[in-house]
Amino acid sequence: MKAAIFVEPGKMDVKEMPKPKIEKPGQAVIRILRACVCGSDLWWYRGISKRESGSLVGHEAIGIVEEVGSDVTTVHPGDFVIAPFTHGCGYCAACRAGFDGSCLNKPAGRNGGYQGEYLLFEQANWALIKIPGKPENYSDEQLNNFLTLADVMATGYHAATSAEVKPGDTTVVIGDGAVGLCGVIGARLRGASRIILMSHHEDRAKLGREFGATDIISKRGKEAVAKVMELTNGAGADSVLECVGATSSIEEAGKVARPGAVIGRVGVPQTEPSSNTLFWKNIGLRGGIASVTTYDKNLLLDEVLKGNINPGKVFTKRFDLDHIQDAYEAMSNREAIKSLIIVADK
Amino acid sequence: MKAAIFVEPGKMDVKEMPKPKIEKPGQAVIRILRACVCGSDLWWYRGISKRESGSLVGHEAIGIVEEVGSDVTTVHPGDFVIAPFTHGCGYCAACRAGFDGSCLNKPAGRNGGYQGEYLLFEQANWALIKIPGKPENYSDEQLNNFLTLADVMATGYHAATSAEVKPGDTTVVIGDGAVGLCGVIGARLRGASRIILMSHHEDRAKLGREFGATDIISKRGKEAVAKVMELTNGAGADSVLECVGATSSIEEAGKVARPGAVIGRVGVPQTEPSSNTLFWKNIGLRGGIASVTTYDKNLLLDEVLKGNINPGKVFTKRFDLDHIQDAYEAMSNREAIKSLIIVADK
Repeated sequence: MKAAIFVEPGKMDVKEMPKPKIEKPGQAVIRILRACVCGSDLWWYRGISKRESGSLVGHEAIGIVEEVGSDVTTVHPGDFVIAPFTHGCGYCAACRAGFDGSCLNKPAGRNGGYQGEYLLFEQANWALIKIPGKPENYSDEQLNNFLTLADVMATGYHAATSAEVKPGDTTVVIGDGAVGLCGVIGARLRGASRIILMSHHEDRAKLGREFGATDIISKRGKEAVAKVMELTNGAGADSVLECVGATSSIEEAGKVARPGAVIGRVGVPQTEPSSNTLFWKNIGLRGGIASVTTYDKNLLLDEVLKGNINPGKVFTKRFDLDHIQDAYEAMSNREAIKSLIIVADK
Repeated sequence: MKAAIFVEPGKMDVKEMPKPKIEKPGQAVIRILRACVCGSDLWWYRGISKRESGSLVGHEAIGIVEEVGSDVTTVHPGDFVIAPFTHGCGYCAACRAGFDGSCLNKPAGRNGGYQGEYLLFEQANWALIKIPGKPENYSDEQLNNFLTLADVMATGYHAATSAEVKPGDTTVVIGDGAVGLCGVIGARLRGASRIILMSHHEDRAKLGREFGATDIISKRGKEAVAKVMELTNGAGADSVLECVGATSSIEEAGKVARPGAVIGRVGVPQTEPSSNTLFWKNIGLRGGIASVTTYDKNLLLDEVLKGNINPGKVFTKRFDLDHIQDAYEAMSNREAIKSLIIVADK
């Protein structure tokens, strides 16, 4: 089979390698249809974080179950599934509390291998999400919507739940990448009545409005904070989604939040926020790895099936597996909001 | 009038000075009956933080309204009141959201002057809490209960609300000072079914049990964390009250929390916690200055009047104003859980 690998910063490749085999009773082999590139992949693609040369890459996909281990009873060969980047067991205290992204039994080792023809998936019994019917029943747009449920839409929603967005909230979303844009959808699903998106790119702001943003702030730094204060009569926002992970954006989140608000953060934090600032304004900080399976099964898959949300619009460029280098470059150069990779047609 | 002042680290005094006068329409002058020493006062008493020599001290009291400014219509001379350390306006976005401890209109400058015969109180119209009847209608024990509603009981309750304690929770309370002990009461009021108190002092552990703690952990560090994990089948606690503010205790809170739990912190943070650890476990961090007036008016005064809670038991030594030095020493040397100061008999 063919699979994408990381060679060195700025360089991806596609290699021929053996098709994975079931080694443990909880695993499944998935034949991948569509995969994509994540903003977090850019950390190692750009050489900011380390990654082993030759390692398998990608952590978001949809596909067809090819084979299952003896413990897997919820999905069967031929089933159409979402393969999340998380691997919740479904029965530990974390999963039961709705935090399968921090499953107490999650497999050790780096996630990867979704950008390839076949994927060996751990804890398949609970973590995989079955999509009704077959891929050929769905439009190209719907397939892209499903693909976002492997990570980005669930992560945007996690930002909104972590920020404890309530009906009627004025919510600020920091970050106009694919996660931030899905955060706008998440805030809308939770009932925010005003959604202020910080965006410096016209195409992203436009999609943000389509997803539910009521206000766009294109200024940066102090001016952006002043604008939020103006829009909220000096009070600050009821909830803030921090979808970047940079120190400056967490600090900005603290500044635009009203006392008692909660910041929901899903960007992997590069450094620690100044929690003293948060303390004096009684601002909460929640977030982490998204509860992908929980959200998909309880809400998001339904919203996609009903046509209520169209998060797949974040894919603004598409590639095949052989053009994996181009897919990463387009993301890294901000030519694509998110790069789609068509691995197989059906 | 007589009032306590800070002289230098380790040295308090009582000075004769002019009785305060109403200077602004929102103020009230309160004749103090009982005041007390707070754990946070020890930061400057011990010289760890700076405080101006000669400054008025104390931020918790009950007393009788002596005089009110022209804007004050909710309390009248002769009313028996709790004088909280917070000064919520009652109408800003923070107060309306229930966070009067972070009121957007709070008066500038350092709080103080409650340990004296008369107190000039800011934003009296909303922030003061009227106690029904007269002091002579209540027992010594009830007067002490009322006094805790000026800060320590409300702060303990804020730890529990910030930690989002839910009915049925297994809750860990870190800190066996007066705030931590009131945090145990707070967790019980919110319905926690198991309350694990970290306590290294037999007298405090005993009071903790009386207040509702179901388990006491007297070990420290790794052993204490291991004990919580043992008591929670390896999962960690559903909610954690951090009532110290030291870096080590925030870190301990992160270690004993199960994924998805929230840490409620009320100890003024000395340094920032490692938020990376929190991220990977999806652990939230909330807290700050307590919503004293909100909690007192909505719940705590009622609970005290009905005899459901007895937080006044944290006062284990009593002094008069002339013995202010002894009151601070007893707290600093851990001879008293909390020092009560009787300023006037009635």
